[in-house]
Amino acid sequence: MQFSASQLATLLNGKLEGNPDVIVNSLAKIEEARKGMVSFIANPKYEEFLYTTRASVVIVNQTLTVGKPVSCTLIKVKDAYSSFALLLEKFSENNDLKNGIQQPSYISPTATIGKDVFVGAFAYIGDGAELEDHVQVHGGAFIGDHVQIGCQTVVHAGVKIYHDCIIGSQVTIHAGVVIGSDGFGFAPQSDGSYKKVPQIGNVVIEDNVEIGSNTTIDRATIGSTIIRRGVKLDNLIQIAHNVEIGENTVIAAQTGVSGSTKVGRNCVIGGQVGMVGHIHIADGTRINAQSGVSKSIKTYGTTVTGSPAADYISTLKSQAVFRNLPDLEKRITELENQIRLLATERESIQ
Amino acid sequence: MQFSASQLATLLNGKLEGNPDVIVNSLAKIEEARKGMVSFIANPKYEEFLYTTRASVVIVNQTLTVGKPVSCTLIKVKDAYSSFALLLEKFSENNDLKNGIQQPSYISPTATIGKDVFVGAFAYIGDGAELEDHVQVHGGAFIGDHVQIGCQTVVHAGVKIYHDCIIGSQVTIHAGVVIGSDGFGFAPQSDGSYKKVPQIGNVVIEDNVEIGSNTTIDRATIGSTIIRRGVKLDNLIQIAHNVEIGENTVIAAQTGVSGSTKVGRNCVIGGQVGMVGHIHIADGTRINAQSGVSKSIKTYGTTVTGSPAADYISTLKSQAVFRNLPDLEKRITELENQIRLLATERESIQ
Amino acid sequence: MQFSASQLATLLNGKLEGNPDVIVNSLAKIEEARKGMVSFIANPKYEEFLYTTRASVVIVNQTLTVGKPVSCTLIKVKDAYSSFALLLEKFSENNDLKNGIQQPSYISPTATIGKDVFVGAFAYIGDGAELEDHVQVHGGAFIGDHVQIGCQTVVHAGVKIYHDCIIGSQVTIHAGVVIGSDGFGFAPQSDGSYKKVPQIGNVVIEDNVEIGSNTTIDRATIGSTIIRRGVKLDNLIQIAHNVEIGENTVIAAQTGVSGSTKVGRNCVIGGQVGMVGHIHIADGTRINAQSGVSKSIKTYGTTVTGSPAADYISTLKSQAVFRNLPDLEKRITELENQIRLLATERESIQ
Repeated sequence: MQFSASQLATLLNGKLEGNPDVIVNSLAKIEEARKGMVSFIANPKYEEFLYTTRASVVIVNQTLTVGKPVSCTLIKVKDAYSSFALLLEKFSENNDLKNGIQQPSYISPTATIGKDVFVGAFAYIGDGAELEDHVQVHGGAFIGDHVQIGCQTVVHAGVKIYHDCIIGSQVTIHAGVVIGSDGFGFAPQSDGSYKKVPQIGNVVIEDNVEIGSNTTIDRATIGSTIIRRGVKLDNLIQIAHNVEIGENTVIAAQTGVSGSTKVGRNCVIGGQVGMVGHIHIADGTRINAQSGVSKSIKTYGTTVTGSPAADYISTLKSQAVFRNLPDLEKRITELENQIRLLATERESIQ
Repeated sequence: MQFSASQLATLLNGKLEGNPDVIVNSLAKIEEARKGMVSFIANPKYEEFLYTTRASVVIVNQTLTVGKPVSCTLIKVKDAYSSFALLLEKFSENNDLKNGIQQPSYISPTATIGKDVFVGAFAYIGDGAELEDHVQVHGGAFIGDHVQIGCQTVVHAGVKIYHDCIIGSQVTIHAGVVIGSDGFGFAPQSDGSYKKVPQIGNVVIEDNVEIGSNTTIDRATIGSTIIRRGVKLDNLIQIAHNVEIGENTVIAAQTGVSGSTKVGRNCVIGGQVGMVGHIHIADGTRINAQSGVSKSIKTYGTTVTGSPAADYISTLKSQAVFRNLPDLEKRITELENQIRLLATERESIQ
Repeated sequence: MQFSASQLATLLNGKLEGNPDVIVNSLAKIEEARKGMVSFIANPKYEEFLYTTRASVVIVNQTLTVGKPVSCTLIKVKDAYSSFALLLEKFSENNDLKNGIQQPSYISPTATIGKDVFVGAFAYIGDGAELEDHVQVHGGAFIGDHVQIGCQTVVHAGVKIYHDCIIGSQVTIHAGVVIGSDGFGFAPQSDGSYKKVPQIGNVVIEDNVEIGSNTTIDRATIGSTIIRRGVKLDNLIQIAHNVEIGENTVIAAQTGVSGSTKVGRNCVIGGQVGMVGHIHIADGTRINAQSGVSKSIKTYGTTVTGSPAADYISTLKSQAVFRNLPDLEKRITELENQIRLLATERESIQ
């Protein structure tokens, strides 16, 4: 796919400075761009590259003051980052879209397959499974019995979805994700062994969710583990049984949410966070990376950090003192010495 | 499957109050139950739901005092949670059991397949592998050469077991688990590069173990990495080479155990715990979530927490003071001011 | 494969004491070795086993003083550990090597397959993919469109490599690894939802890299996520988009590196470490297990620990005081009492 600078300017509703006829056919970072490429500068830190870049076209914020001559064509826009994201979309359109049923694949005779569905080689579609129109199931993915998948959802290579789970529309599930494995429920027995608590619920993924590679989402003991509309999960995340993640919450990689915990909507949760089970996290909560959340968060918009997690600002202050603890201890010892001296003198005065 | 309330009362050895003929056909949480469902109340926090639930039957502890009229049929038992777990089993019986060899699958001519074994489509059974009776290998699972799998073991979709590993009976291995990949052993060379130390051991999983999805268990350098009878591992756990996990120990998600560490029996280990290599953890140890265990634990029944992990109670006390560190520092500064004042006054007195 | 003790002595350039004709056919740890096995002692802690082992041959350091009679044949070498590693290699040679194309497998007609390539059953080779000579792609692995794989690289069962990624020579990729899934990039919208930022870059893995099972490496937004020559990654590691890991750096299990962070060469990074995005880690940095690195590390050879990570030695000192915090608080309270007493007395004196 290729565009002229003037086509880009029109597409982005921007103001062109330079050669309107120069052609670009790919995107690159400003420091790596070469001839025939379009790049952007959104962060002032990168402005210096404007004068040395070999990019043919650079998208910049209209507020940018260009102090020196530039060799590239500029397109000035309201928000360079958003404009570039739009171009990313233009250049990536239809990149992933495949069609038809590759062979060999396994589609149960009782499965229902919609229009324009793609099923890759070695994909497995179980009994009674339903794939709506334009679903893409890539090579080697496993769709268990009676699983439902909404339209335009993409299931990447090697995803495993256990029986009876329900996946919404326009969901993206990356390679290696496991959905619907048994929750971790075992009843201790008097001889020290454990007896499995059957996990007869399922997982429900609502529309517009994206799930990163090798993330695991366990089915509920009874009822459903629920990932609400618009949630974005990064890679290697653990979602335990009966958890609910609220609408438009984003969670970074390697975080774990323990059983029956309910996370609110519009939360932003860092990587490697852990949450204990059976707690509630208020809407709009921000949880910093590596935090350990051991109790419910009740107030909208709270930010927490640390393990055990506590209020962000006060934890930062405690961490600052922590770094000086050896010094603090010395000051206490010094005070003890001085007090002893004063007390001794007082006795000698009396 | 459906039961009358009186059948349930007989099954659970409970006392029925209400309509013995009402029919239930599924299970639900008390707050989500509808007509035709059976639920339970084990935790006093949920007793309020007894008066509003739409469940047809509710199982309660015989010690529960019912203060107001209820519309459901009650079954009073000694332990409502255990009774409900028993019902879960009744309702889930035979849910997973499949039979026969789906096509296409790959079974080496030198593999040995027992009676009533299930092999799903795209499953791979390597040279000399042995599957005992009633083993279930779901779609796309990979069983390497000379792997042995004991009777009634379930290998879920997309599990990968490397050559020569030994899996016991009645083991459940969830989707995406990797067993027997190479241990992480590399010898540093003088030029800064690393040379691989071959990993020629294997992994031995004993009977009645359950392994959560996407967990990884590396083969031993020499000898065996061993998961003892009755161990329960959650999702995304890392077990390094030459580790041994003792009988009936349970480990929550995302925990990592480094090479050659021996964990005792009947331990309870939280999520996101890390253990360094070459240490011993005593039987009956409890390790709290996110702990970092950097040395052996020698006493039975110890509880540790924190990173680096230390005794639970004393760490809680230190954490409480940590939250007040800025205040503590102010108190020290104040003391220093007062001491200075006292010292000055003393000089002016003298 | 079997060797006589005298063959081993020649191979290892060692001095033999005992029966030169005794035959060994496998390797074992000193405490587990039996007749017909060769073992080693490198660590003085294990010297006691020398007098009780049932191994036929034991390799020891030439500096070892043998204080009591031994029943095994000894081979004395300069470095017992290196010698044993060499034997491991001898015994493991050709263990993994397979040949030919198993059926059924899926190889796109536009893929290019080199000489002596192994493709396991249910492996998927996409359009335009290129596999150089001696590449091994095990059962159920997924090689996306236009992926390039260098000679002698081993791709284990169930690995998923997305389109357009580039893998070097003599790379080992363990089961369940995902390479090239989309980076975690979403632009917040005014209604609280997120819009996906397309990820049109790729992943480049250079030569001699080893990647542990179920590790995930995301493709770059634009440009490449790069794993340099000789890097060793353990299991369940997360490498985000646009990260670069420098030559010969080793990273232990369950560590996560956030987007656009550049890690230097010859770093040694422990398990469960987290790094925030957009930072630089100097060459030769050592990061202890469970550290949380929140800012760039600029000096070669720095060692850090803790979360947030700080200098190793000073953090150890702070941690030591942390364990005594309740005592420290008592000392402060005691000082306040004494000061109050002194101040009161001073007033009564005046």
